[in-house]
Amino acid sequence: MKIAILGTGSVGRTLAEKLAELGHDVTIGTREVAATLSRTEPDRMGTPPFQVWQDKHTNVLLARYIDAANGADIVMNASNGAASLDILAAVGAVHLDGKVLVDVANPLDFSRGFPALNPVNTDSLGEQIQRAFPNARVVKTLNTMTAAVMVNPAMLAGETTVFVAGDDAEAKQTVRDLLQSFGWPTGSIVDLGGIDGARASEAWLLLWIRLMGPMKGPFFNLKLVQT
Amino acid sequence: MKIAILGTGSVGRTLAEKLAELGHDVTIGTREVAATLSRTEPDRMGTPPFQVWQDKHTNVLLARYIDAANGADIVMNASNGAASLDILAAVGAVHLDGKVLVDVANPLDFSRGFPALNPVNTDSLGEQIQRAFPNARVVKTLNTMTAAVMVNPAMLAGETTVFVAGDDAEAKQTVRDLLQSFGWPTGSIVDLGGIDGARASEAWLLLWIRLMGPMKGPFFNLKLVQT
Repeated sequence: MKIAILGTGSVGRTLAEKLAELGHDVTIGTREVAATLSRTEPDRMGTPPFQVWQDKHTNVLLARYIDAANGADIVMNASNGAASLDILAAVGAVHLDGKVLVDVANPLDFSRGFPALNPVNTDSLGEQIQRAFPNARVVKTLNTMTAAVMVNPAMLAGETTVFVAGDDAEAKQTVRDLLQSFGWPTGSIVDLGGIDGARASEAWLLLWIRLMGPMKGPFFNLKLVQT
Repeated sequence: MKIAILGTGSVGRTLAEKLAELGHDVTIGTREVAATLSRTEPDRMGTPPFQVWQDKHTNVLLARYIDAANGADIVMNASNGAASLDILAAVGAVHLDGKVLVDVANPLDFSRGFPALNPVNTDSLGEQIQRAFPNARVVKTLNTMTAAVMVNPAMLAGETTVFVAGDDAEAKQTVRDLLQSFGWPTGSIVDLGGIDGARASEAWLLLWIRLMGPMKGPFFNLKLVQT
């Protein structure tokens, strides 16, 4: 499939690498290609400049948001959650209409320091995106874990859980198939229902962030255990 | 130990039964003893009248909040989170000062329907209680699961995780010991740090409530899985 990934950070890169490995035709979208390639310093998260990564991943293209999304079967939002709505506006509704729009971002706002704020009780980024682009088929998934685990669940010492939420059953099935290709067993995928389920999975982030302390880093996930 | 449990609902009863079984001297606190014993109908959650339960649990006493807490080594807040601060005020700071105050409640507000609202981003019930009663040694724990799992973690098909958060290390150790007596292995207890960690564990409830759908009820818990 032709897949556009919005976001040049570590989440976007990790997804792009895996999807290209799986044989998909992957383009990462950015605001200005020249600006993205001209950076020579790691970002404030310590992520190396894009060009360094690009040199090792020549099977992934870089293009403007609009060019990446144009003709893509699936658009994945791997941008900073606080910027996602702006970035999707730059893509344009015409390039999102009818498409599976996979939202893996979290609307964490660190502007007032830790812990992050988010619209957890009565709204979610997933719902905001669906409202802003009513003809896109938004599926919220993978936002509950660090990027390395998203594409390699087997790195953890046991099967864990991934959530999907979205209003379009067919889009959700496309995403389930993608998750399975990443190594998520069918039984590990828990359906939170409609896109308002994003409220629930985004709320988890407030616990997830806190857990990076006792877990000594981001390499963990939750598993749901029943009777 | 002498343990006071605030709240006559299913959480309070479940904790009281287990603690009495373990040999503790347990009193459930209520606003008015006569009123609590006079009810003859199940409550809106379907919980049977207290007298029905009391008849089968004669090793647990029922008393006014203040009388239950007076002289107790540990006070457990198992009341409705929306009413907890009022109930603790009825207990009175003098009966909480210096005591281990175990807060298992969640400040879920269903007044605007589902999903519940809570003060998740910038505050938590645990912190509100600690601020209102600065000399109590508040430990937030067990609020992340249904009552039956709290006192019987082995009912689930695998070890799961329980959180503790609180500012007083000694109080937290007392709670850890209590959790272990309930069947929580040392390694299953994850320390979220100070009482502001309650923000994190209370946030989980927004996902927990949603999960009752796909999990077909409340009998589940999360397990943290690392590399």
